Order: sequence, then structure tokens, then C-alpha cells
Amino acid sequence: MAISEIDKLIQILARLPGLGPRSARRAALYLIKRKENILHPLIEALRMVDTAIRPCGNCGNLDVADPCAICTNEKRDRTKICVVADVSDLWALERTGAWRGLYHVLGGLLSALDGIGPEHLLISPLVRRVEEGGVTEIVLALGATVEGQTTAHFLADRLLPFGIQISRLAHGVPVGEELDYLDDGTLIQALEARRSL
Amino acid sequence: MAISEIDKLIQILARLPGLGPRSARRAALYLIKRKENILHPLIEALRMVDTAIRPCGNCGNLDVADPCAICTNEKRDRTKICVVADVSDLWALERTGAWRGLYHVLGGLLSALDGIGPEHLLISPLVRRVEEGGVTEIVLALGATVEGQTTAHFLADRLLPFGIQISRLAHGVPVGEELDYLDDGTLIQALEARRSL
Repeated sequence: MAISEIDKLIQILARLPGLGPRSARRAALYLIKRKENILHPLIEALRMVDTAIRPCGNCGNLDVADPCAICTNEKRDRTKICVVADVSDLWALERTGAWRGLYHVLGGLLSALDGIGPEHLLISPLVRRVEEGGVTEIVLALGATVEGQTTAHFLADRLLPFGIQISRLAHGVPVGEELDYLDDGTLIQALEARRSL
Repeated sequence: MAISEIDKLIQILARLPGLGPRSARRAALYLIKRKENILHPLIEALRMVDTAIRPCGNCGNLDVADPCAICTNEKRDRTKICVVADVSDLWALERTGAWRGLYHVLGGLLSALDGIGPEHLLISPLVRRVEEGGVTEIVLALGATVEGQTTAHFLADRLLPFGIQISRLAHGVPVGEELDYLDDGTLIQALEARRSL
């Protein structure tokens, strides 16, 4: 039992990924008890994001500008596009600072189980970007899951006619990982792709 | 790397209990992608809670009214007060429907480690409620932790002079729990407090 106003907040919070009914209750109480320190800043931050953030019409990234800051950055290598499933993957790659090309965010992965077909993802816009010319390499950074691999194969088929380089991320031992915790598939791939020192 | 507006939202979300930096990023993206379905309802629910919910001046419960709906409910047994650490404990007891008396929310537990003394909790208002008369039993529903037991002992000492009945929740085997998962302390208490069938 909780007051209906609090109950409504708990129900909405419980729909966020990572929060169940129990943690949503704790989060709601935490917010109510700290109106100045958390509740008000949260409302303000949500309103800012609501009004300011939009998807980039070119690559699907989220930004205050459309096209986004990456697409309009002159220092970026415009001949290379890294294809990711989600904006969170783009953020992860940007945190490394290792990718200096552009991105394309698909908005998900193909999944027969979840009924997600090519028409649900931003695949046509990607093909259009390649058709417009100037792109020489597409890196498919899609995760080593069934859905990731299915999507990678589908995209490779679609992009093959353009005669550009298509690559995927390397498989292998995660840095800092011990061998006996790794699955066989990763070990086999790491062995096959071994590099001389 | 994320846009500063999104980054700010992520930082605030990450301060909520149950959400770390990673799940805060996922929650922020989830919100941005579902403006109509989640982001707008969340802003509305937060604003409702912000303006409507306040602590009850009598018992510390959270409600739209002060005194709260429990304190003003004529069907409640006004001679019995159940003392809890937090509003979430009150909610848990209300969900059971097993308590028909009033409540008193302390707002925490005594903790030398965290520097929480009697003056930080709503202990004086509890003593005042007892002083005003009419209360015949205080149930200390405070959790079987060091802090809970310390607080229970402190309250029992303070309430002893009033000559009212002071009780605590029973210890024992949680319903649905298997014996070999239980700690020794619980087993000993459950054995000592055994009841004839």
C-alpha cells in the first residue's frame, strides 16, 4: 500500500531497465525524502533532455544538434562508418577514443524471435549513405550474439554490391580476463586469430 | 562520452538506490527513446509527488494529507503504535493488512558508525505521543540488525517509565524458507520460541 501519487511514480520507475518493483519503491522514497537534492534536479534534467535531445537524421546518434556533433566534426574520417546497434554502443566506443570515423546507429538488431525485421532498423538509411559515395569501409560492431551475427550477415549481403571494405570487430580474449573463465567459442576464435609477437 | 544534457541525467539517475552508472545510462537511453510512453509520464508523476506528498506531522508517514490517512482513520486502534525505521517498512506492514493500530516512523535507525544519534530520529515526537496518554502498547518493528536492536533497546529504555506494554516482532523461520539456509542465530531463536501444535 502506498498513496496513489507515490504508487504511480513507483509503477513508472519499475518500468525502467534495471529497476524492479522493490528497487522502484526504494528509489521513489529516496526521491521524496530529498526533494531539493535529487527530485528537483531530476525533473529539471528530464525536461532538458526532453526538449533538447533528438536523433541525428544522418546517423541515428542522439544529440542537441541534427546532424549531430560527430557527423559535422570535420576532423572525423568520413570514409569510414562504424555500425552499432544502439547509442549506448556508440558511447562505449567514444569513451575509448579509438574510433575516428563516423557512426551509424541501427536502433536494434534483427530478431526473428522478437519480430524485428530489416524494416524496423535504420538499414535503408545506411545503404543510402553508402550509395551517396565517399565511404570506403564499414565496420560492423554488433556484438557476438546470435542477433548480432545475423544482423552482420544481413548487412554484409546488402553492402557487398558496393565493393567497399566490410569488417567486423576481432574476437578474442577480453583484456584482463583469465582463460579458464572463457567459453570454448571465444578460445577457439582467439587461437585461430593468434598473432605473432 | 555522452551529450552534457544526457550526462547530467545519467549522473542524477546513478545516485538513485539500485542504479549504478551502467544501469543509469541504460535507463537514460530508455527514457529518451520513449518520450511519450515513459519520459513524459515520469516527469508528470515526479511533479505530482513533489507538490502533493508531505510527511505526516504526527507519525512521519508520507501522504497527501497531514495528519495522514492512517492517523485520521477512525477504524484504527489508537491505543497501539507500531514503530518502524522507514516509510517502506510501514508500506510492507500495510500490504499484509495484519496491523490495525497506528504507526510511528523514526526516519532511520541509531548508528554510531554513520553518526546517527537519537536527535537525528523522530524519537522525541514518539515519546510525546506516549506522554499525551491513550497508548497502551508499542510494537518495535525494527529489523534484526545491530542498528535495529540498538534502537529497540534505546526506545525501550525511554518508554519504560510510562508503564505501557512494549513488544518486538517475533524471530523465527521465515515462511517458505528451508532450515539449512538459515543462520544459527535465527535457528536458536526459533527453537527457544517454539510453540506447541
